[in-house]
Amino acid sequence: MTVTTPKGFRSAGIAVGLKSTGKPDLALVVNDGPERASAVVFTGNRAQANPILWSRKVVQNGPAQAIILNSGGANCFTGDFGYETTRLTAEAVASVLSDGQGESDGDAGGAIAERVLVCSTGIIGVGDQSFRDKIVNGVPALAAALSADDTTAPAAILTTDSVQKTASYVSDAGWTIGAMAKGAGMLAPGLATMLVVITTDAKIDSEGLDAALRGATSASFDRLDSDGCMSTNDQVTLMASGASGVEADAAEFAAALAAVCDSLAAQLQADAEGASHDIDIEVTGAASVEDAVEVGRSVARNNLFKAAIFGNDPNWGRVLAAIGTTEAAFDPYSVDVSFNGVRLCHAGGPDRPVDECDLTPRKTHVLIELFAGESTATVRTNDLTHDYVHENSAYSS
Amino acid sequence: MTVTTPKGFRSAGIAVGLKSTGKPDLALVVNDGPERASAVVFTGNRAQANPILWSRKVVQNGPAQAIILNSGGANCFTGDFGYETTRLTAEAVASVLSDGQGESDGDAGGAIAERVLVCSTGIIGVGDQSFRDKIVNGVPALAAALSADDTTAPAAILTTDSVQKTASYVSDAGWTIGAMAKGAGMLAPGLATMLVVITTDAKIDSEGLDAALRGATSASFDRLDSDGCMSTNDQVTLMASGASGVEADAAEFAAALAAVCDSLAAQLQADAEGASHDIDIEVTGAASVEDAVEVGRSVARNNLFKAAIFGNDPNWGRVLAAIGTTEAAFDPYSVDVSFNGVRLCHAGGPDRPVDECDLTPRKTHVLIELFAGESTATVRTNDLTHDYVHENSAYSS
Repeated sequence: MTVTTPKGFRSAGIAVGLKSTGKPDLALVVNDGPERASAVVFTGNRAQANPILWSRKVVQNGPAQAIILNSGGANCFTGDFGYETTRLTAEAVASVLSDGQGESDGDAGGAIAERVLVCSTGIIGVGDQSFRDKIVNGVPALAAALSADDTTAPAAILTTDSVQKTASYVSDAGWTIGAMAKGAGMLAPGLATMLVVITTDAKIDSEGLDAALRGATSASFDRLDSDGCMSTNDQVTLMASGASGVEADAAEFAAALAAVCDSLAAQLQADAEGASHDIDIEVTGAASVEDAVEVGRSVARNNLFKAAIFGNDPNWGRVLAAIGTTEAAFDPYSVDVSFNGVRLCHAGGPDRPVDECDLTPRKTHVLIELFAGESTATVRTNDLTHDYVHENSAYSS
Repeated sequence: MTVTTPKGFRSAGIAVGLKSTGKPDLALVVNDGPERASAVVFTGNRAQANPILWSRKVVQNGPAQAIILNSGGANCFTGDFGYETTRLTAEAVASVLSDGQGESDGDAGGAIAERVLVCSTGIIGVGDQSFRDKIVNGVPALAAALSADDTTAPAAILTTDSVQKTASYVSDAGWTIGAMAKGAGMLAPGLATMLVVITTDAKIDSEGLDAALRGATSASFDRLDSDGCMSTNDQVTLMASGASGVEADAAEFAAALAAVCDSLAAQLQADAEGASHDIDIEVTGAASVEDAVEVGRSVARNNLFKAAIFGNDPNWGRVLAAIGTTEAAFDPYSVDVSFNGVRLCHAGGPDRPVDECDLTPRKTHVLIELFAGESTATVRTNDLTHDYVHENSAYSS
């Protein structure tokens, strides 16, 4: 059910003191092969944390051999010192994997720092000497804890998350996919604030992984827009070990990966900071998928709409006001809008009485029918609540 | 201090029962000439209320003779019936102005409905027979209340506003500008949710008014982004009577109009729903004004930043995360960010300790220095507070 579900991977999660709570805050995932392929999708934010700057270089050096992730500090905007911290972290991982420490009978030996991906999550601007020491000095113990049956890694990457997020897929053909994720706020497109590690023991090359990963993320994480804020540290990493010995059918693999990413996206939505509603905004009849996503996103980012849902108010007027700001092809006076199955707006005017609609369940479905084409898309978001304001104002994060 | 400050205008505001509170909800402003010129800026939202659809036609018929405004219902997405309500409203105004009822010694006689602008504000989807009857039947009493010394109109256009908003300018050359505004939420660019009526007794033609108005609104209302939500009913109307007999210097008039609009924008910001901070985001060193506005707006729309300010947390990391999503020309690692005069981020890294910065005053100044050019812009916004969520969730609006 996690990144060690597929054969050929070991992982571990330990506490090194980055979190003041003493909870696990450092995780490592190692690809023991026999093959190594990988693909990574990074945040679209130009303001990028040091681990992102580092990992972008790593992917140019060939398939990743391992990925180390810390919570308790984003190591973003921490300057040259912070970048050096990231490099030293990768070097520490390569060192322990090369000298046999924490080594299984796989072939992770010979690991080099330039093949080690690094992820960090936590507060921007945090990354001092103490932060560096805790991580670098913690690597040997982390490597020693590596296990092919590990279940401790998912907890070590959490920040304000209330639950661990994992997903897996088992193919009848004999290969599997496993995944873990963190993310509970700053969820926005071009990736939510989230770290995701996905592993598979299917035999598939990096090009195949990359195509499947981009397809899967564009239809899942890229359509999750909890609060419109894009992070500096987002990274989705997919690694293949080939340990099943089975060559995956490309179509099945793509569909399976999409399902895994969709499951993780739904878990991220369900754990969004302070939310009381999980809102699926389904747009149908769009002239293109891009139009459908643009329309859905305009609603997902509308604070007045989001506050109304918190108040269990099916305010279809705010939906129309939001979609009117887009450039998507449709006639605002021909649109239908339904909340939880009750059509409240027909052809741009009032339809059923709003009191027929019950918004008290957490799951909320908004259907926007554009009548402008055949394309559809669903954008996931959350409501705007007192708890969201509290969690993002009462303490720094 | 309001729309009757300039000579040649009469106004009135009365209660006709649209507001459940019994407060004034219908206002009329008449241009008695001797000249008539006008310019109007409408919402950029494609979802437009019936009064907007009507007023867009009016401006094509020549200078407006009068403008009638109601609160207590937006008459938006109310279908053909709603459009007919707007038309009947304009006709009622034209009728009373033509038959001498409510007539001064000016020349408003001969008014035709197609020269009467209409504005509505309130809940979308509201505009039934009762709504129509109250407005249309209220017009004779409204016209009878018209006065060149009126001070009642500004209150009649308010919705969730807590205070009236007015502004004026008196030129040594002998002409004046007067203005009234409403708006307290859904404040976003391409106009905030707001209705603004500006009058002047300067002699100036419609082309001159239009150029001055577009310049003034682009640097004021278009840079006010309280909650990122764009309304369906926004309209800024400028009318000139020429009653001063003085031809206005174009440069002075443009500057005066800009100052009046800037004052109103500041008043709208200060009265934004539920806000506890008025945040001025000043961007300097931009490669272009467009870049400066884009950078400022990205921060103004970032819920995490806005929640942090509510918590008096000078979270410069969220500023960098926000501006990193823009396409403006700058190096994220060369940016300086100051809060209330304390530079907390220098060259994309930590600078002064955050506890040197006091964010308890309501007025908040965020300075973002891009070092990419010579252009500057200031975008106004507000914080994201519990009261904002409450006001926009606890009841429908």
